[in-house]
Amino acid sequence: MTRRLSHALAEARTAGRPLLNGWMMTPEPAVLEALAAHDWDCLTLDLQHGQIDPTQARTLARTAAGLDLPLLARPAWNDMAQISRLLDDGFEGIICPMVNSAADARQLARAVHYAPSGERSYGPVRARAAYGADYWKESSDNLLVLAMIETREALEALPDILAVDGISGVYVGPADLSLTMIGQPTGEPTNPEVVAAVDRIRETAQAAGGFAAVHNLTPDHASKMAAKGWDMVTGPSDIALLSGASAAAVKQIRG
Amino acid sequence: MTRRLSHALAEARTAGRPLLNGWMMTPEPAVLEALAAHDWDCLTLDLQHGQIDPTQARTLARTAAGLDLPLLARPAWNDMAQISRLLDDGFEGIICPMVNSAADARQLARAVHYAPSGERSYGPVRARAAYGADYWKESSDNLLVLAMIETREALEALPDILAVDGISGVYVGPADLSLTMIGQPTGEPTNPEVVAAVDRIRETAQAAGGFAAVHNLTPDHASKMAAKGWDMVTGPSDIALLSGASAAAVKQIRG
Amino acid sequence: MTRRLSHALAEARTAGRPLLNGWMMTPEPAVLEALAAHDWDCLTLDLQHGQIDPTQARTLARTAAGLDLPLLARPAWNDMAQISRLLDDGFEGIICPMVNSAADARQLARAVHYAPSGERSYGPVRARAAYGADYWKESSDNLLVLAMIETREALEALPDILAVDGISGVYVGPADLSLTMIGQPTGEPTNPEVVAAVDRIRETAQAAGGFAAVHNLTPDHASKMAAKGWDMVTGPSDIALLSGASAAAVKQIRG
Amino acid sequence: MTRRLSHALAEARTAGRPLLNGWMMTPEPAVLEALAAHDWDCLTLDLQHGQIDPTQARTLARTAAGLDLPLLARPAWNDMAQISRLLDDGFEGIICPMVNSAADARQLARAVHYAPSGERSYGPVRARAAYGADYWKESSDNLLVLAMIETREALEALPDILAVDGISGVYVGPADLSLTMIGQPTGEPTNPEVVAAVDRIRETAQAAGGFAAVHNLTPDHASKMAAKGWDMVTGPSDIALLSGASAAAVKQIRG
Amino acid sequence: MTRRLSHALAEARTAGRPLLNGWMMTPEPAVLEALAAHDWDCLTLDLQHGQIDPTQARTLARTAAGLDLPLLARPAWNDMAQISRLLDDGFEGIICPMVNSAADARQLARAVHYAPSGERSYGPVRARAAYGADYWKESSDNLLVLAMIETREALEALPDILAVDGISGVYVGPADLSLTMIGQPTGEPTNPEVVAAVDRIRETAQAAGGFAAVHNLTPDHASKMAAKGWDMVTGPSDIALLSGASAAAVKQIRG
Amino acid sequence: MTRRLSHALAEARTAGRPLLNGWMMTPEPAVLEALAAHDWDCLTLDLQHGQIDPTQARTLARTAAGLDLPLLARPAWNDMAQISRLLDDGFEGIICPMVNSAADARQLARAVHYAPSGERSYGPVRARAAYGADYWKESSDNLLVLAMIETREALEALPDILAVDGISGVYVGPADLSLTMIGQPTGEPTNPEVVAAVDRIRETAQAAGGFAAVHNLTPDHASKMAAKGWDMVTGPSDIALLSGASAAAVKQIRG
Repeated sequence: MTRRLSHALAEARTAGRPLLNGWMMTPEPAVLEALAAHDWDCLTLDLQHGQIDPTQARTLARTAAGLDLPLLARPAWNDMAQISRLLDDGFEGIICPMVNSAADARQLARAVHYAPSGERSYGPVRARAAYGADYWKESSDNLLVLAMIETREALEALPDILAVDGISGVYVGPADLSLTMIGQPTGEPTNPEVVAAVDRIRETAQAAGGFAAVHNLTPDHASKMAAKGWDMVTGPSDIALLSGASAAAVKQIRG
Repeated sequence: MTRRLSHALAEARTAGRPLLNGWMMTPEPAVLEALAAHDWDCLTLDLQHGQIDPTQARTLARTAAGLDLPLLARPAWNDMAQISRLLDDGFEGIICPMVNSAADARQLARAVHYAPSGERSYGPVRARAAYGADYWKESSDNLLVLAMIETREALEALPDILAVDGISGVYVGPADLSLTMIGQPTGEPTNPEVVAAVDRIRETAQAAGGFAAVHNLTPDHASKMAAKGWDMVTGPSDIALLSGASAAAVKQIRG
Repeated sequence: MTRRLSHALAEARTAGRPLLNGWMMTPEPAVLEALAAHDWDCLTLDLQHGQIDPTQARTLARTAAGLDLPLLARPAWNDMAQISRLLDDGFEGIICPMVNSAADARQLARAVHYAPSGERSYGPVRARAAYGADYWKESSDNLLVLAMIETREALEALPDILAVDGISGVYVGPADLSLTMIGQPTGEPTNPEVVAAVDRIRETAQAAGGFAAVHNLTPDHASKMAAKGWDMVTGPSDIALLSGASAAAVKQIRG
Repeated sequence: MTRRLSHALAEARTAGRPLLNGWMMTPEPAVLEALAAHDWDCLTLDLQHGQIDPTQARTLARTAAGLDLPLLARPAWNDMAQISRLLDDGFEGIICPMVNSAADARQLARAVHYAPSGERSYGPVRARAAYGADYWKESSDNLLVLAMIETREALEALPDILAVDGISGVYVGPADLSLTMIGQPTGEPTNPEVVAAVDRIRETAQAAGGFAAVHNLTPDHASKMAAKGWDMVTGPSDIALLSGASAAAVKQIRG
Repeated sequence: MTRRLSHALAEARTAGRPLLNGWMMTPEPAVLEALAAHDWDCLTLDLQHGQIDPTQARTLARTAAGLDLPLLARPAWNDMAQISRLLDDGFEGIICPMVNSAADARQLARAVHYAPSGERSYGPVRARAAYGADYWKESSDNLLVLAMIETREALEALPDILAVDGISGVYVGPADLSLTMIGQPTGEPTNPEVVAAVDRIRETAQAAGGFAAVHNLTPDHASKMAAKGWDMVTGPSDIALLSGASAAAVKQIRG
Repeated sequence: MTRRLSHALAEARTAGRPLLNGWMMTPEPAVLEALAAHDWDCLTLDLQHGQIDPTQARTLARTAAGLDLPLLARPAWNDMAQISRLLDDGFEGIICPMVNSAADARQLARAVHYAPSGERSYGPVRARAAYGADYWKESSDNLLVLAMIETREALEALPDILAVDGISGVYVGPADLSLTMIGQPTGEPTNPEVVAAVDRIRETAQAAGGFAAVHNLTPDHASKMAAKGWDMVTGPSDIALLSGASAAAVKQIRG
């Protein structure tokens, strides 16, 4: 993990464009190697709905280090033990699911920061090897800690969540948000109420000086979100890319 | 492996079209599940240049069985032990690399057939469970045994190779064939000498009553080969599909 | 996972007999393949006291899909992240350990149902592939959600547990129940107080319209429980079957 | 795990010396085999900051059983499900991170003991095979349950923690203790305040009849701690041993 | 691997009974642990028709070492590299498939013995750790090297095979032998010609001072072979034991 | 694998010192990460007597790529399929065991070079990604292909082996050489005949313009060999380093 996420962030900021984030559902290093050949700023490993467990995430972190590609992780839950392990392995971006309250956000902040800001336990074996002996001192400065806003409850608590020290900003999960708002898990919402809510999350976060990121299923939607001014847009997952290409290839060959 | 390769073959023949074969380089079951959602007639697991080892091939065979998708395998080499293991695990199609002589073809035939036709050792645990107690009796009738023709030497020996009992036909590897013919590893050859050789392999094989299959890198080339009358055309590999889609997505989102 | 657990349940009900449930302690797909050759209605993977972790459970789910055998899982704990992952992978039956109170039962219900009934997060990759795009709409209708009753505390809270929306019924763990009631972990209790308690659980559950299932160690005990009217009886685990057969074989050969 | 931890403890006590504990960060059985050739009384597998997951811990437990080497484990967290699994697999020593209060200590005690002392669920497959059918009866007598004292908060709660039934004693994590006390994660503290605190933990624990163990990074420091009267001293981790030897070898060969 | 195969052999000889050999098809250590609870003298791991690869065989060797159970291996083929690896890992019994000629037997002998008797390469990491620094000197004295006699060709070459230095004896594979003799792969032959051939193999081997072992599928057949005077009889495989018990349990519970 | 072996070689040559080669027996990436912190020019993965299989070697290659550490591999045997796979995965150094004749050397050369020099099959997925689209053209220029000289027979054939096109030089395996010469497997020989033979191999190889490398067990011996003018000296293996440090630590702590 020679390339730090903060470098990628700085580059994107300088260029005045959002961070372009890829998304991995599978634990296969060859898939990561294939994605790394293109110009993603970073990739997120999905340990929640993807099929990656923490041990596989470490193998992928090792693979990414050889490809100068910064990795984020979405842990399976707002769980201190799992988040701690991801950080020890050198992940510098955490997209935490289901942060529905300031209390949830404080728990997340405690997990990612060392004392006195938080309660992270010391022992960052891979991170120290990758980032140097002073890693512990500067780790907090380099973390991107995103609270997933994906329920009605979270929407209401948004200002409180953003006010929690140690949280960088928010990551919108439109499918769960739609599900809780209108009873439909729509990955790229068109319902006006949901669309408005998603916009409002971005505005609120950025107004509070926070980072605003959003999940997408298609390049088209990701482009639109980039144009709207999100700080990070996620592109289609590895599986979505593969499925789309497979469907198109079969169609073309069958004629 | 509830669906047998012979059923897929029969269907394609009845429909007057070639078998449409997908190609897997990675050992990840989720990749297979993604490909299985589309209308590939079968998939080949590549144990030679792909990253699949025999133990992983078994896991993929179990996955494919739940998706009614017949699998073939390209073993790493014309190796009795590895081919035997693949057959025991229920693979019914073998695409054997580097069959350069009738002697190579006879070795392959010995590996895939039980006595008296061959020397396969008895013990087909998964195959018997999948295909029934009489598997050993009818296994030879259901095998697709393809000799890869991918060197000058093989080109010259082609009639002898096709004359070997127990070989179903040929599978052309254009990259190695180009490399040995014109010193360039071209996956979809345009050099007239190589193109002519590839055509001649198909004609010779089919004239001898054999099955003729060909490797491709793109849907476009696969379509052309289908139109030429090949019995099986391979589409882009999982990694090629993913890479193409990843490149296109990044391009579109970056605008 | 082409065969749904609800089909197996419906068949057993129509036939007027309990569901016959096998029990796997080991993560080995070949063991599952061996069990699948016999007439178990379904199998439960034990992630608590068995040696199966969630990644291995997914591999077994893929194997079972090819064998038309519905799977349940006993998660290691009443843990939202692990239960969510099992459901995403297509498991439709959850046998949750140590449900000792209505609060425990509500936590379980929240984990397994989507909003508005619960708080399950959306992203059912394998489940959607296996059961169709409408999976999220009908998933709750097809789940078998069983609360393990295995402590004195749970016995007392039984009516409250059964009254929780989103719980299908109960699964009795006699060993832990005996341990907490009489200080002995007896898998097939003979102590009258424990036997009476086990009977009472079944009667209470069924009287409340709930599903009543019970763990057993031997075919003999399972038969007796079936005769008593349990809705599901578990047979000997894979390891118990193997151990019994191994002991008998050695004895017979040694003479 | 033929050799029980209690035997190693008894031997060390009889000899009037502390238990010499090795420390494994990697999940590789060959590393354990290499360490087992020397005279460590026991080894601890680190599931918190090391790279060992519970499934790998089981494989290491099987390896250690063939080497007559008792194993302890440091779970990733004070987590009932993970601790339960480690105990079921035959681990008899638990070094639990971040026990900061009597409540934390009670939670730990509940996880490791069967009723009526605790709430451990019954099903010790490997432990019963290793230690006999009466394992459940005597398991509590043979457990070494150590609460990690590694924060200011824990220091203050120390007498309360030591008063909790079912806890054997304490294990000092100097790096986290230093971090929370003086803002520096020093593995072998020299700061007088921290040194005094570490000494006080030992004295308080032993005065209360408890077991006192301490983490070290170097043989030198471990020797000093042994001389001070700690009941168990940990030596350099596998990775520390390897790194030191690698650095020395390169230096010597390069001349 | 504290218990050596030669100890088990010596015990059986002293007791005037054949070695009772179990047979593992699956790579699961828990299965080995279950079998080890009964009185098998040794177990053979099947790398040919079983589902065990060399890396898994090493894990099983580590497991068996903790259970004082000597292991043999059937390699996938008469292959120097694989046999060498098994020996380095401490296996002391090799059951080599398809030894059909004296040349095959000499190749096997070269693989298992160090110079000057053979060509085994030096580097027995686990074996040296298990058996001591002098392992290389005495390894040949402790090996049980069995040539599988399982074709007509092998039958004819039997005296020549037995005359090869460095081969301990023979192991009869009745299924392949039947297949090549009468065109039927019968695991426990009843055809008089095959039965006579099997008997003759034992008599010829023992008359030549060699060790005679035979594969069986059922305890009943194994008993009969024991009574006939075979030096080692194999019992039902793990999968056969499990399947039999599973079928019986389902039948009994269904009533 | 961003850093190429040829760069490391060029650097060492310029500095007028031998290449300093580490040696890995275990498949654990954390071990590789620990070694990479020191100044080894390259590491060799041992697939013959070490415990690394080809799939694990690929994982280690991915890890090394992130650490700018070139890797070599010792395959299990002079086997085309395995060597091909290692090269496809980006290994640029092959230390081939038991090259005892010019025929063995020619087989090795055929395996590592593309036509027209050899018969390597085209499909270098990782190598092409790491080294660029022209990899196939320049791969032969960057390979270090070493024939292990480790028997009397090889000694005699040395000039013929060195004369084979496509072989870079020799790697001496002193243990096997001693075993075949004087009946003792001595890793760092003192027997004058063996010492003389080892010297002669270096002189003969270098006189023929070949590369001369030698295996060592200790830093001391490696230093001596470096002083003698070997082109590459191997240091103690990971396991040797660990074992030495573990023994020393225990001794020091026990006092």
